[in-house]
Amino acid sequence: MKSDLVKEISPFYVMDVLERAKQIEKEGKDVVHFEVGEPDFNTPENVCKSAVDSIYKGRTKYTSSLGIDELRKTISDDYNDKYGVNTDYNNVIITMGSSPALLLSILTTINPGDEIIITDPYYACYPQIINIARGVSKKIPIYEEDNYQINIKKLKSQISKRTKAIIINSPSNPTGTILEPEIMKKLSQLGVMVISDEIYHGLVYGTKARSFLEFSDNAIVINGFSKLYAMTGWRLGYLIVPGDMVRYIQKLQQNLFISASSFVQHAGIEAIKSTKSETANMVEQFNKRRIEMIGGLRSIGFNIESEPLGAFYLYVNSKKFGNDSYKLAFDILENCNVAVTPGIDFSERGEEYLRFSYATSMESIKEGIRRLDNYLN
Amino acid sequence: MKSDLVKEISPFYVMDVLERAKQIEKEGKDVVHFEVGEPDFNTPENVCKSAVDSIYKGRTKYTSSLGIDELRKTISDDYNDKYGVNTDYNNVIITMGSSPALLLSILTTINPGDEIIITDPYYACYPQIINIARGVSKKIPIYEEDNYQINIKKLKSQISKRTKAIIINSPSNPTGTILEPEIMKKLSQLGVMVISDEIYHGLVYGTKARSFLEFSDNAIVINGFSKLYAMTGWRLGYLIVPGDMVRYIQKLQQNLFISASSFVQHAGIEAIKSTKSETANMVEQFNKRRIEMIGGLRSIGFNIESEPLGAFYLYVNSKKFGNDSYKLAFDILENCNVAVTPGIDFSERGEEYLRFSYATSMESIKEGIRRLDNYLN
Repeated sequence: MKSDLVKEISPFYVMDVLERAKQIEKEGKDVVHFEVGEPDFNTPENVCKSAVDSIYKGRTKYTSSLGIDELRKTISDDYNDKYGVNTDYNNVIITMGSSPALLLSILTTINPGDEIIITDPYYACYPQIINIARGVSKKIPIYEEDNYQINIKKLKSQISKRTKAIIINSPSNPTGTILEPEIMKKLSQLGVMVISDEIYHGLVYGTKARSFLEFSDNAIVINGFSKLYAMTGWRLGYLIVPGDMVRYIQKLQQNLFISASSFVQHAGIEAIKSTKSETANMVEQFNKRRIEMIGGLRSIGFNIESEPLGAFYLYVNSKKFGNDSYKLAFDILENCNVAVTPGIDFSERGEEYLRFSYATSMESIKEGIRRLDNYLN
Repeated sequence: MKSDLVKEISPFYVMDVLERAKQIEKEGKDVVHFEVGEPDFNTPENVCKSAVDSIYKGRTKYTSSLGIDELRKTISDDYNDKYGVNTDYNNVIITMGSSPALLLSILTTINPGDEIIITDPYYACYPQIINIARGVSKKIPIYEEDNYQINIKKLKSQISKRTKAIIINSPSNPTGTILEPEIMKKLSQLGVMVISDEIYHGLVYGTKARSFLEFSDNAIVINGFSKLYAMTGWRLGYLIVPGDMVRYIQKLQQNLFISASSFVQHAGIEAIKSTKSETANMVEQFNKRRIEMIGGLRSIGFNIESEPLGAFYLYVNSKKFGNDSYKLAFDILENCNVAVTPGIDFSERGEEYLRFSYATSMESIKEGIRRLDNYLN
């Protein structure tokens, strides 16, 4: 007996690509990975050392369900410093990654059948997590020709009595674009709670991403350590929420997760406080790769209208090479051993798109572009 | 705007006790903790060392959403060795603790409005997680005079078309009792999926707890590393599920959690493979404390009919001292600085009960009993 819910959840098509890529590698061939959504860098050494110290100090017990105060304070200080906001650490809740943070936010915000607005293309998990919480996703298309900015008029027309939240993600997965401050301001004036997924903050190139908290307190911020600090496998994230929401989320957390890992939380303090030069170096590397990837893709015939300035993704129109993104991704993988993510993972309109991640070495990017050129042209 | 769901979730009353206990400690007074649900032992040193090695080896990336194969194999081997069952590692799914494992199980099993049967008293989170998944808890009372065994006839009479699962927990929180094999056998013949929470397995004294997999394959086993290996703050658990359920749970996990922590999974391998003497020692200590706690409570007037042989809890009738468990717990805390868990955390019928945890030192147990004696008698 399986629930209707689990039957409805669509798989990540990129997982099929990844699985096949691993088979090809087992056959002894070398695959270039443009499909991955995690930094290839190692976690900064002092963060590792901090975790190790904490393990040996016996910080291996449950913590408060809200997280340890020192980490919560470090996070609110960090937000206050970076964005000039006035966050209280009591409004920070530590989670085991940003995915459970999103689940907690949505469970706290909607009743079954309530609506959440997301932009389309979207991070693949958004509609699924909304579905798991028995909500309804309303998708607002955003377009390359608009630089993937939100059309506020169109969004407004989708707001109903059942609309309980709008999820934004700037810098964005899959497009890499950053929302314009003017649009964030307008979003803050709609009277609808905004859930701002700021997981790619810090991974910006020659610009700054604004926190939604600069525009409104009627917001839930989701963030974590996976991307900026190269800590994907640590599972550490957090929420910043309005004060009247803390107790509700705490009760959910107590029941669903108890608390985040103790020593991993201590490592998180070190990550924020003492990795300035390491993160600056990673950002510099990502930027060089970004430029290389954009230039490379353009040189082999992909049209990239505007250059995204955040995250480590390019969401690229691939219509001239095929209009079935899954088939195209597999054709590319089989024929030249380059793994890419099919656009359908991010939108029903995604058949004419591929997502390229540049979270891989310069050598791999050059080699991947060379192979794509050979195969496609 | 808050969801009805979060408004419905009742708090853990023990958290109020704990909070007040911490205040009292801040005032410089010493509190005896009989309320805690986690081992006071340190995580075995070789487990810590294994995590440290993995961190330095860079095992800090996402893993497969099902978990790393070596850990999955170690778990299935462990179950096959201990219980003479025939579990395939492909049916093992690694989670961030046993709480999310329970959420995944329930989301996979029920549609909104479907029923899950639980025994009453119950682990406080069961009805809440069922509620979060939009299911309905049907509670089957179990009684001290029956040694908290399940009355199969009564249970049968509660099964309806909407009953999708029965949750069992042996050894049990809060009662510490172990289900009789004959009853497990009968449960396996009801044609209803059993979710067997085996988190306290290994913490048994002079007896053995049977896995439900010995009786049926139509079962989901939930287990983890928190209790037996003193790894509460590591957040590592797992599921063993029927083969046709793996793919569904994997899709949920991909969306909600991505994967469990990489290096923590490696530490889990070490915990199962190489902590025989450490866990044997912990079990021996727990047993001595159990005997001390039972003797102590009896000596000061608590009636304990049969002696529970598992976990590290005693669920004790406290009617002669009061019929409001929350008030009684606070009276005890304020008057003699002993923290206990009120029975209402585990049952609406729990007003005449307190839960005593013996996951604390022999000295604390003796001191706590002495204080209780002074205050209550």
